[in-house]
Amino acid sequence: REVLGRASWTWGPNGHGAILLVNCDTERRYRKKLDSESDHVSERSDLKDMSVMVLRTKGPAKLPEGYKLTMHISQGDAESVRVFKTRSFEMTVLSQEVPYLGGTGEMNFYAEGLRFPDKDFNGLIRIHLSLLEPISTGLPETPIFTDTVVFRVAPWIMTPNTLQPSEVFVCSTPDNFHFLRSMKQLVASSGYKLKICHAYLNRGDRWMQDELEFGYIDSPHHRFPVVLDSPRDGELMDFPYSELLGPDFGYVTRFAEKKDVSSLDSFGNLEVSPPVTVNGKHFPLGRIIIGVAFPTATKGRNMTKVVQDFLWAQKVQEPIALFSDWLYVGHVDEFMTFVPAPDRKGFRLLLASPDAGLKLFRGLHNDGHGQAKLFEGLKDEEQITVDEILKDEGLRAENNYVQSCIDWNRDVLKRELGLDEEDIIDLPILFKLVVDNNAEFRALAYYPDMVNMIVLGKNLGIPKPFGPKVNGRCALEAEMCSLLESLGLSCTFINDFASYHKLLGEVHCGSNVRREPFDFKWWNLEM
Amino acid sequence: REVLGRASWTWGPNGHGAILLVNCDTERRYRKKLDSESDHVSERSDLKDMSVMVLRTKGPAKLPEGYKLTMHISQGDAESVRVFKTRSFEMTVLSQEVPYLGGTGEMNFYAEGLRFPDKDFNGLIRIHLSLLEPISTGLPETPIFTDTVVFRVAPWIMTPNTLQPSEVFVCSTPDNFHFLRSMKQLVASSGYKLKICHAYLNRGDRWMQDELEFGYIDSPHHRFPVVLDSPRDGELMDFPYSELLGPDFGYVTRFAEKKDVSSLDSFGNLEVSPPVTVNGKHFPLGRIIIGVAFPTATKGRNMTKVVQDFLWAQKVQEPIALFSDWLYVGHVDEFMTFVPAPDRKGFRLLLASPDAGLKLFRGLHNDGHGQAKLFEGLKDEEQITVDEILKDEGLRAENNYVQSCIDWNRDVLKRELGLDEEDIIDLPILFKLVVDNNAEFRALAYYPDMVNMIVLGKNLGIPKPFGPKVNGRCALEAEMCSLLESLGLSCTFINDFASYHKLLGEVHCGSNVRREPFDFKWWNLEM
Repeated sequence: REVLGRASWTWGPNGHGAILLVNCDTERRYRKKLDSESDHVSERSDLKDMSVMVLRTKGPAKLPEGYKLTMHISQGDAESVRVFKTRSFEMTVLSQEVPYLGGTGEMNFYAEGLRFPDKDFNGLIRIHLSLLEPISTGLPETPIFTDTVVFRVAPWIMTPNTLQPSEVFVCSTPDNFHFLRSMKQLVASSGYKLKICHAYLNRGDRWMQDELEFGYIDSPHHRFPVVLDSPRDGELMDFPYSELLGPDFGYVTRFAEKKDVSSLDSFGNLEVSPPVTVNGKHFPLGRIIIGVAFPTATKGRNMTKVVQDFLWAQKVQEPIALFSDWLYVGHVDEFMTFVPAPDRKGFRLLLASPDAGLKLFRGLHNDGHGQAKLFEGLKDEEQITVDEILKDEGLRAENNYVQSCIDWNRDVLKRELGLDEEDIIDLPILFKLVVDNNAEFRALAYYPDMVNMIVLGKNLGIPKPFGPKVNGRCALEAEMCSLLESLGLSCTFINDFASYHKLLGEVHCGSNVRREPFDFKWWNLEM
Repeated sequence: REVLGRASWTWGPNGHGAILLVNCDTERRYRKKLDSESDHVSERSDLKDMSVMVLRTKGPAKLPEGYKLTMHISQGDAESVRVFKTRSFEMTVLSQEVPYLGGTGEMNFYAEGLRFPDKDFNGLIRIHLSLLEPISTGLPETPIFTDTVVFRVAPWIMTPNTLQPSEVFVCSTPDNFHFLRSMKQLVASSGYKLKICHAYLNRGDRWMQDELEFGYIDSPHHRFPVVLDSPRDGELMDFPYSELLGPDFGYVTRFAEKKDVSSLDSFGNLEVSPPVTVNGKHFPLGRIIIGVAFPTATKGRNMTKVVQDFLWAQKVQEPIALFSDWLYVGHVDEFMTFVPAPDRKGFRLLLASPDAGLKLFRGLHNDGHGQAKLFEGLKDEEQITVDEILKDEGLRAENNYVQSCIDWNRDVLKRELGLDEEDIIDLPILFKLVVDNNAEFRALAYYPDMVNMIVLGKNLGIPKPFGPKVNGRCALEAEMCSLLESLGLSCTFINDFASYHKLLGEVHCGSNVRREPFDFKWWNLEM
């Protein structure tokens, strides 16, 4: 990418301009901690996180008496960038004399980003070099020539389900032995690595999806994963910083006032679509998806502002806000996900659909299976027949309401992702309403919420629904297989009933996947 | 208590001065929510939380032209108090004209506290009444007579183990069925009420002790329980506000910056002693006990400042800071508790003691029980013999370190609570060191930490230690019974191994007890 002698930064494959990484992995942090006074680069490996900035000079053997070269940064940019020379020199002041080498010379500097783009920082940083001329004693020198280079701080990028997994994370708890065994088998047979957060670290907090989101930062010189730590702070709160942050594994978080944090700040409520094109506009890195209160609501839960501001400021995966506050837990992953597909746009949007659920149950009734029972084989769970469900008018009204909430999101997703009906698959999932802590109705999955799945390439780990059996086979599982196997996907049903479903989460809530970055380079985006 | 015509407030049985309650229970909150504009008292029952303030006037039938009565509060006090007249009049401004009834009259006002004493508020509030004389048009009136009444806002008071329980709280989780059954039996046979926080509310977060602390506020006219909500926010975070707050059940919390919150902010790290006398100074409400980093440490975890400030500002249970950061989880309830006793000071301090543990194991060895095994009957737990423990020099060194940490706290407790050796019982408990997230050694209980018990009157629910058996009886249980039964206490050992101990907590961490208030009235304290 062309960067030389440019005082501007432009997007796209024909664009130009240099790129900085936020040095948010361990070496930088250790340096800060151990060398807070001298603050010089103490790890050779740290230099590779930085952008090299070459100063080329061509002139007389020596500058005339009183003339000098200085490098300077504005007060505002000084919060966002730091420049080092080799391993000893650090530009700690805004204006700093640079030695003049004489004749034709080259000097290397190293620049690191100190913070990500955010509401108050557009990501651009200017570094200036001036030749100063003395005027007379007591007066400041005057710049007679200034050159400027512009850097853009690389944004934090999320990875959709269509990207290749590299590591899968789950928690071990005293009650999830069977779930863990199923996950181990699925992950191993899919050929990926499983990392287990042990009980003594998670202290019973099993919601691995909710505490953190994996992403990465990229530049022409270097790339590494960066975890975004949620303001949700369960017992897993130390996990991202203590267990994930490391050499070439970055960490970023946003602090919110406790009183502003709600269940919608869990990152089951933060997802990203595969690449899409919407009315001719390309989103080759997809679009971020979050859940909030209904747009016209005067109250209700929202994702906290500091996190929303951060996500919007990254720019390259322009976010979409869905309505998720109708759910008791309130996360978008309770009603939607994406799976890879060999045709069309390369993926399908899967949506929970009470209509599809009721239609399936009516079909069972018509085929003479009205007495088939849900929840067979589950201890402590009352069984219920297909006919009992169909006769429950309250339940039907509740599911009509839920369908209208999902339909609202369906329309937003079609419009904002440029989807056709054929890009969407409706999954047969029923919900029920319960009264929440504010005496308002909110929705929960009636049986394990199959859309809340883990996607590992073509292998799907789906909550086992414990649906009514027809000829010994669960009709809900059969329907899922029939809908998804034609796309070359393989369905594994995982029993998460007691240890996740009953605690209001499922397979996706209880796991997390670090994925390979996009091949597409963010600076090639046309903005 | 004498309150009339006093512009001062004094402590003690011969003291005087009026008292205000912080109106922090539901009626007040509903009023705020529903009537935020008019903000008048909408619930008759709300008036009983308020202090009645009577204005008695005696004078001419009518004030001379231009003279008037006004009630006024300073800018600072206006944040802490609000005054209502019957149900319609609210003093929303700092200076407010009061109607003059003429002759001899009485008018009732109602005052409520708006906030608890804190670092920036000593709890005292002054309300003034002035008779204003007109001077000339355009000039403000001059007060020719002012009367003042002083209120003190009632402090939040904690309740020690020696007070009678009224309700016991535990969580139900998918894996704690046996624990729950044992707790139900213990609570029922002790004659108290058990309240269960169900799995769909706690979502796997079982640490009921850590999310909240029960206390109360008291005045001559009214008294009710108030829950202090911890800045720790696990999945139980909504429980105190949504499930406990109600009519005559108040709520208070302190918000901290997320980054300032650590495991030491869980309220397993906030306890209170029974009443004590220290060098002649009486603490009839006991003393609050919290855990912090070692005083000379330059780093380490601490209870967050906003909570410490709140606790100190309540004054009537002057806090003691212990050193708890040596523990992995870091809570004082991991090494100490109090139990009632019929003699001496009315209680005993129980301390975990590795020395007592090693002594007990050496005794077993000498009596020929060196091959007796710990952890018998536990699935997935490797058994170990008494002799293997005694031979482990690393473990012995670790326990020596732990003993030195506990001894440091033992000295502080003896000094600050005025205890003698005979007031302390050392319990045979071993620890082990593990490396924490900051690569530092921290301690965990080696077997279930018996000091982390629930105290219900004379009935103790103690973590079942799974110690070595002698003639079929656990030697650790036998020792506990021998130490405690002579005090009239009854020991029930509760198996919390898989669902609590392995997640680094025990019976006390997993429960909470609301207790009856002290008979002693806080305003009778000699300060």
